[in-house]
Amino acid sequence: MPLSEFSLITRFFRQKKVNNPFTQLGIGDDCALLSIPEGYSLAVTTDTMVENVHFFADADPEQLGHKLLAVNLSDLASMGAKPVSVMLALTLPHIDKNWLSAFSKGFLALAEQYSVDLIGGDTTSGPLTLTVQAMGLVPKNKALLRSAAKPGDFIYVTGFLGDAGLGLKIKQGYPCKKPHLALERFNKPNPQVAAGMELIEVAAACIDISDGLASDLGHILEQSSVGACLDWDALPLSGSVVDYINETGDWTMPLTAGDDYELCFTISEDKALTLTGSYTKIGVIEESLGLRLSKAGIIQPFSNRGYEHFS
Amino acid sequence: MPLSEFSLITRFFRQKKVNNPFTQLGIGDDCALLSIPEGYSLAVTTDTMVENVHFFADADPEQLGHKLLAVNLSDLASMGAKPVSVMLALTLPHIDKNWLSAFSKGFLALAEQYSVDLIGGDTTSGPLTLTVQAMGLVPKNKALLRSAAKPGDFIYVTGFLGDAGLGLKIKQGYPCKKPHLALERFNKPNPQVAAGMELIEVAAACIDISDGLASDLGHILEQSSVGACLDWDALPLSGSVVDYINETGDWTMPLTAGDDYELCFTISEDKALTLTGSYTKIGVIEESLGLRLSKAGIIQPFSNRGYEHFS
Repeated sequence: MPLSEFSLITRFFRQKKVNNPFTQLGIGDDCALLSIPEGYSLAVTTDTMVENVHFFADADPEQLGHKLLAVNLSDLASMGAKPVSVMLALTLPHIDKNWLSAFSKGFLALAEQYSVDLIGGDTTSGPLTLTVQAMGLVPKNKALLRSAAKPGDFIYVTGFLGDAGLGLKIKQGYPCKKPHLALERFNKPNPQVAAGMELIEVAAACIDISDGLASDLGHILEQSSVGACLDWDALPLSGSVVDYINETGDWTMPLTAGDDYELCFTISEDKALTLTGSYTKIGVIEESLGLRLSKAGIIQPFSNRGYEHFS
Repeated sequence: MPLSEFSLITRFFRQKKVNNPFTQLGIGDDCALLSIPEGYSLAVTTDTMVENVHFFADADPEQLGHKLLAVNLSDLASMGAKPVSVMLALTLPHIDKNWLSAFSKGFLALAEQYSVDLIGGDTTSGPLTLTVQAMGLVPKNKALLRSAAKPGDFIYVTGFLGDAGLGLKIKQGYPCKKPHLALERFNKPNPQVAAGMELIEVAAACIDISDGLASDLGHILEQSSVGACLDWDALPLSGSVVDYINETGDWTMPLTAGDDYELCFTISEDKALTLTGSYTKIGVIEESLGLRLSKAGIIQPFSNRGYEHFS
């Protein structure tokens, strides 16, 4: 029996219950309807993943479902928003029930974890392309913006840097002795939603590290009209990443590799004293434009950029 | 010089000004921020168009930009929502500046017409796939739903039926004597935004005709648990569509062809008296389930469905 568009959505993507009180109308009409509480703004973001560009053709579909949602929730996290709803636009070359079942399992499990409602979408036939639009709530005029960094701010990151980059190298053949954590970080990143919501009261600028720390911090610098100096020796690196650097000499990898989905934020010196989460100070915002790197006591300009499409 | 993702968006898609007061933050950060006025719900929809599935590889990019936005605004129109913001996810095989320039011209001209802000998006490399998410405002608890049709309601449509279907036939080689209007309707549909906003006070159920009248009315019937009888002789048909039917005998085309983007709505008999726009009554909602068609005095079940992906 052919699966119609509607039964496809019903069968694989309809959630058991409405998870949050902001969904007035979910899947099944021309539009979904959201109720936005007074005193909040709606934060909206979209990210696309394309086969053979963002993921390998043999990618595990359950991990892919998780990752597609995670990268979108990560954008909400970087503004300090609480995720509430997502739309899913699926372009599929054919109907593979096993693939769809696993993909939706990974997607909906992460949605459930954050009480996010899948409120609508579109399914079309064509080359495998996955687009999510995610929506979240943020108290009015409190969102963490790229443009809010000030000279003297400290620069912090959540978690560790470069593990996802190492995961990609492992997928490409690098012989890592302890590959599990790096592969897990590459395949199944965790969006830093709780950190973003905690930081909204104290941080200045914030961005998620999707294209690499140097590139993403670069957006903060550009939009805040400031510069920065990073301390390479302060970067939070896992044992596997340290081993990788020692073996290959590729010490820029944690600065340039994408897919970490940690947050990079700036915060004034006095507010930094109030931080309670496990954040690592990695540098300072300066008036002088551009990005500099301090490594083994030597300060040099650093211009390596992360991955950019078409460039 | 390679065009980075950011400069691509800046160069081709940044609008000259913020068009509406609901945009707090537009393109350039991890998320856009929207302010939703009290007493309103946010209506959200997404539609994808894929090369060689929804449009021909040689499609005029300016018309394509218009149509991509139009089909999304049409979904907002069917709920009675006022469009305010859109996100654009573009997957492009390569950077073709002429194509992008024309595509964005068509897209932004229609956005301007409705004071819609392009507030964000994503550009990725891959097979040509275009996804829009559109957002609109609708007074709380006033949205026109598919599930609100009642036995005795009259069934109306806006505009004419089958012109876009005829346009597709012309593209496929049908020798139409007056092809201009049909091709215009196929290539550059007008979303019925004003009609939707007018109907919100009087109509019961509403849907936009994207997959064909029979198929889309079928969604109203299913979700309202009712049936309907359509009067074929009352269908609003253009001269070219009448000629096509006379020449080919294909009288079901206006009922089954997609891409019209007119609205089909139901309305109680007394409220129908208050209608002032140019709407055409084409049938009546009945208790008995299923869709029936009255043609030349004979009533028969009608089960032809419009285009469905994968079916």
